[in-house]
Amino acid sequence: MAKKFKYSAGLWCLGGCADRFVPLGYLDRAYGIKELIDIAASIKGIEGIELISSQLAGVRPKTFKRWVNEKGLQITGILADTFGDRKFKLGSITHSNKKLRKEAVDVCKQTIEMAELMDCPSITLWLGSDGFDYTFQINYVRHLETLVESIKEIAKFNPKIRICLEYKLKEPRMYLTVGNAAKALYLALQCGENVGVTLDFGHALMSREKPGESVALLKRHGRLFNIHFNDAYGEWDDDLIVGSVHIAESLEFLYYLDVTEYEGWLGLDIYPYREDALTAATLCIKNLNRLVAMLNRIDYQELKRAQGTLDAMSTQEILSKVIFGK
Amino acid sequence: MAKKFKYSAGLWCLGGCADRFVPLGYLDRAYGIKELIDIAASIKGIEGIELISSQLAGVRPKTFKRWVNEKGLQITGILADTFGDRKFKLGSITHSNKKLRKEAVDVCKQTIEMAELMDCPSITLWLGSDGFDYTFQINYVRHLETLVESIKEIAKFNPKIRICLEYKLKEPRMYLTVGNAAKALYLALQCGENVGVTLDFGHALMSREKPGESVALLKRHGRLFNIHFNDAYGEWDDDLIVGSVHIAESLEFLYYLDVTEYEGWLGLDIYPYREDALTAATLCIKNLNRLVAMLNRIDYQELKRAQGTLDAMSTQEILSKVIFGK
Amino acid sequence: MAKKFKYSAGLWCLGGCADRFVPLGYLDRAYGIKELIDIAASIKGIEGIELISSQLAGVRPKTFKRWVNEKGLQITGILADTFGDRKFKLGSITHSNKKLRKEAVDVCKQTIEMAELMDCPSITLWLGSDGFDYTFQINYVRHLETLVESIKEIAKFNPKIRICLEYKLKEPRMYLTVGNAAKALYLALQCGENVGVTLDFGHALMSREKPGESVALLKRHGRLFNIHFNDAYGEWDDDLIVGSVHIAESLEFLYYLDVTEYEGWLGLDIYPYREDALTAATLCIKNLNRLVAMLNRIDYQELKRAQGTLDAMSTQEILSKVIFGK
Amino acid sequence: MAKKFKYSAGLWCLGGCADRFVPLGYLDRAYGIKELIDIAASIKGIEGIELISSQLAGVRPKTFKRWVNEKGLQITGILADTFGDRKFKLGSITHSNKKLRKEAVDVCKQTIEMAELMDCPSITLWLGSDGFDYTFQINYVRHLETLVESIKEIAKFNPKIRICLEYKLKEPRMYLTVGNAAKALYLALQCGENVGVTLDFGHALMSREKPGESVALLKRHGRLFNIHFNDAYGEWDDDLIVGSVHIAESLEFLYYLDVTEYEGWLGLDIYPYREDALTAATLCIKNLNRLVAMLNRIDYQELKRAQGTLDAMSTQEILSKVIFGK
Repeated sequence: MAKKFKYSAGLWCLGGCADRFVPLGYLDRAYGIKELIDIAASIKGIEGIELISSQLAGVRPKTFKRWVNEKGLQITGILADTFGDRKFKLGSITHSNKKLRKEAVDVCKQTIEMAELMDCPSITLWLGSDGFDYTFQINYVRHLETLVESIKEIAKFNPKIRICLEYKLKEPRMYLTVGNAAKALYLALQCGENVGVTLDFGHALMSREKPGESVALLKRHGRLFNIHFNDAYGEWDDDLIVGSVHIAESLEFLYYLDVTEYEGWLGLDIYPYREDALTAATLCIKNLNRLVAMLNRIDYQELKRAQGTLDAMSTQEILSKVIFGK
Repeated sequence: MAKKFKYSAGLWCLGGCADRFVPLGYLDRAYGIKELIDIAASIKGIEGIELISSQLAGVRPKTFKRWVNEKGLQITGILADTFGDRKFKLGSITHSNKKLRKEAVDVCKQTIEMAELMDCPSITLWLGSDGFDYTFQINYVRHLETLVESIKEIAKFNPKIRICLEYKLKEPRMYLTVGNAAKALYLALQCGENVGVTLDFGHALMSREKPGESVALLKRHGRLFNIHFNDAYGEWDDDLIVGSVHIAESLEFLYYLDVTEYEGWLGLDIYPYREDALTAATLCIKNLNRLVAMLNRIDYQELKRAQGTLDAMSTQEILSKVIFGK
Repeated sequence: MAKKFKYSAGLWCLGGCADRFVPLGYLDRAYGIKELIDIAASIKGIEGIELISSQLAGVRPKTFKRWVNEKGLQITGILADTFGDRKFKLGSITHSNKKLRKEAVDVCKQTIEMAELMDCPSITLWLGSDGFDYTFQINYVRHLETLVESIKEIAKFNPKIRICLEYKLKEPRMYLTVGNAAKALYLALQCGENVGVTLDFGHALMSREKPGESVALLKRHGRLFNIHFNDAYGEWDDDLIVGSVHIAESLEFLYYLDVTEYEGWLGLDIYPYREDALTAATLCIKNLNRLVAMLNRIDYQELKRAQGTLDAMSTQEILSKVIFGK
Repeated sequence: MAKKFKYSAGLWCLGGCADRFVPLGYLDRAYGIKELIDIAASIKGIEGIELISSQLAGVRPKTFKRWVNEKGLQITGILADTFGDRKFKLGSITHSNKKLRKEAVDVCKQTIEMAELMDCPSITLWLGSDGFDYTFQINYVRHLETLVESIKEIAKFNPKIRICLEYKLKEPRMYLTVGNAAKALYLALQCGENVGVTLDFGHALMSREKPGESVALLKRHGRLFNIHFNDAYGEWDDDLIVGSVHIAESLEFLYYLDVTEYEGWLGLDIYPYREDALTAATLCIKNLNRLVAMLNRIDYQELKRAQGTLDAMSTQEILSKVIFGK
């Protein structure tokens, strides 16, 4: 039975990247939202797109949906933009200032409304501002309570839309509160049936997880709702080309998505600072297909028997043959 | 109100350490268990001891308790030795081999019996063998189920004894399953009322946590049962002298133990490979007392107001004064 | 003998910071160059400023020098901007394209001319674009040769101006070629008498060095020309407040600057993304002065005797008393 | 032209491993030196062995050489054991105690004598005790001078034998002085024509290097004398099976060994704590051969052209095809 996954692309990946040293970005010009859809549509193998809520500024959700659908694509997820506005620099849905906290919660609710209008099954809360930079900076007790309360409020707003917590250890804050798979799962279990997790492959590595193990953990409770795929060296959110660093881990990740019967999307979340975005995304899809071809070469029963011995040499023999080709 | 903590010492710290290059250890001779108690008793400020279950081999628990009590000390914790016997090298309570798994669970139950006989409130499960080294080595789905089942079984064996999961990212396995505070909390919440966590300061750092934040998280559910104190550079379980590296983090850790009203012990867990153990442990207690003196210099109300602003400069001004003395 | 260091501030720290998620920056408006000088002048204890060559765009060097001097400050260093222009995104003085490489070398030469016109003793080459992101991306053999050739050419351009290589492990490239103290020293020894090193405290930590040991290494050949001070958690260039994380390491760093008779400047290089820059820089200077006060409490002879034993407990006893106050 | 490398195995890998939790080791019995030679000889593809000088205790070098040669193997390197004797716990050739320092230097000289008697071209100084654990512990200035003096003395003892500095960031000390490729190269250039480097693949990763780049750096001066091969996750000296984690980096490493015309040995240095050593070493050689087969699929001219563009997508396209098979 040939494995098959559905691929999506984050629109934020496709129009040039900036960093603190080149804040105007590595491309000579900015791309409009329709251009980004065009680029996504031209990536062979891509069937959906994700976006950040603020990318929709000035465009009616229904209009945007039509643009996307006309290109044969679906909208697979929306990130609530609680991180890109400098007013949230010290916190969004955990802010100690009630007014700012409410504004951040409202951003999330509006994103849920967008999602419903655009037949998008889920929104992602990547809480990039919610954490701290220095020891003693915040009151962790209050912070955790506020976080739980806010997520509950957002989750209740529309139980039909799934709320995906995207965990990440750090950046831009030195420490982000929703920092690893278990913490995201813990919060999901606390906050509501429609709360789950967006697992970003590179984030899992940064949290020193084996991404495949995180799949198993999250699927144990049916809370793995969305995937962001990329690669990274492991200490930072490098957002590199899929399969460029962690081949065995990528393969294992796909394996666990398969055996736990994940039915969601694999969304590209790369940052090709110095590369052509279309070329980079295309190579990601090629590498994904190559990894799936490898996956098809694994004899699952043989692998499970080898895993049953707990002896690494048994599984490594199988893996080496699959990866190196014989 | 002057803060006060109770200090204990792990007997395993006091009699010489080995590593893979000097497996016979850095001391010329091994110490007997009574000598270790004597050393512990001679550390000024120490009121309790922890031990590893296998250190009791050949000694009746009641006898051991009498030895300890005669020195004016209490037994504050026992680590179930599921990691020091080479038969468990591929797993203990998660082993796929039912017989070995049962033997490991039995070690834990026997440790619970010891604890009851010695009026020790808790045992610690530091599952140093339960994890994996290589990608694809184990079946994570089965592994997680077995882990939960085993902990439940152990927890039910005697509900009066607390079971403390001591999380650690890695070592000796490349990946340990109970790898961070949130995962330990998640498992505790799954496995029983008497299941909680032993938080090791250096392990928290290795899992890229702020230890004080982990206190707040675990105390949110009353599941912080025991503490292992030491210091570390953050990438490995260095088991260094308390206060030798992370002064601000150590202070914040004590602060959260205080404000969340932790009533358990602070147990020293250091590995003075190249140092005199008594000198090292004595310096740890001195530094702990110095940290507590710092803690007493913090105006909690002023700190909380500063934390309420979320502005790091407000809290750093306070912290700098407390640490640097004015 | 009371120790005394000279403090400078990087102008790039004082006018707001951007990152990839908030590329327009965390401040509502940009600051002009004269405003930045005013801010620097208002930081108590600052006697000099550093700048990035491109910050001088449109201003005559002599005019800029007058502005700075009128505020009672000196110009202590200039970073050649070979990293902020997107045309250098794949390399500057190591570029395989000869024309681009020449343009980058010319930027460095123009920076040397500026330095001479402004009585500034040195320029810094922080080669943030020269490295690679992916395995196999560049030809290391060619790359190293070109790097050495370019540095030699720049060094020869004006032997009176010192060329400081500022090493950094990574960011913005995943790997920077001039990545640690020993590599910078090796290149300096290869490239000319007037080539040395700018040691950034946080960069040394990121390269897993003890900054004090790097001082000793670089001073062994008289090649420590400039310092950038800040603090960091150790895995990334966090550019935090001086003394906020690594107190013992900061103290040791100052100790080695003192005993090796460093006569250059300590330049602040922080990135207060979410903080008020003036407040942040002021706190850095306060903490530096507090660290110097600690340094004055060390009995150097006693310390050296303790170091002579190689026993960590001897030196830790001294250090603990110095840091904790008794 | 098919690439060909010569493989050796460290005898210390083949007879069971210990760690601090299981100091008696993971095997039920110790192996004698002749058994270890037998195991090495039974690994298909192995043509040489390396040993630690103390493994020769009680055996005459000529006798040992005969045993090895009788099995069709050569002796490719000897590690001077300056780390396994507890008397050197605070330092070996850098010790501040002149008597101990002399004893350590004598160990190295005796190792050189062994090498000459056994027709072994080089000895390796892996200075696992020479460094420090705590801030302020040692006097870096004195330490560096003593290190250079000792290496010079050792190098002069017999200019026909090559002295290989094996760098490593840490372990067993928290910080080792010879900590990265550039520092080892710097020391080699300071200390004599016959001083070079043993590059351990996992050590290079731990020092956050791309191993292939380190090859290029060391070969720039002809100072790459020996290789230790294994794999690792990058934060610790995991000593895993070759090719089990870093496939692209391993391939690039071999590529640079090839293009810089490295003529020495590739020595296995793995620690199969929980695995059968013979199986593990055999799999390493299989994976090495598979990597060499991949290397033979690279069109070097095409790759160099792609590298000339500096564009990662050009090289990644080539690499992906080579690794994934089409």
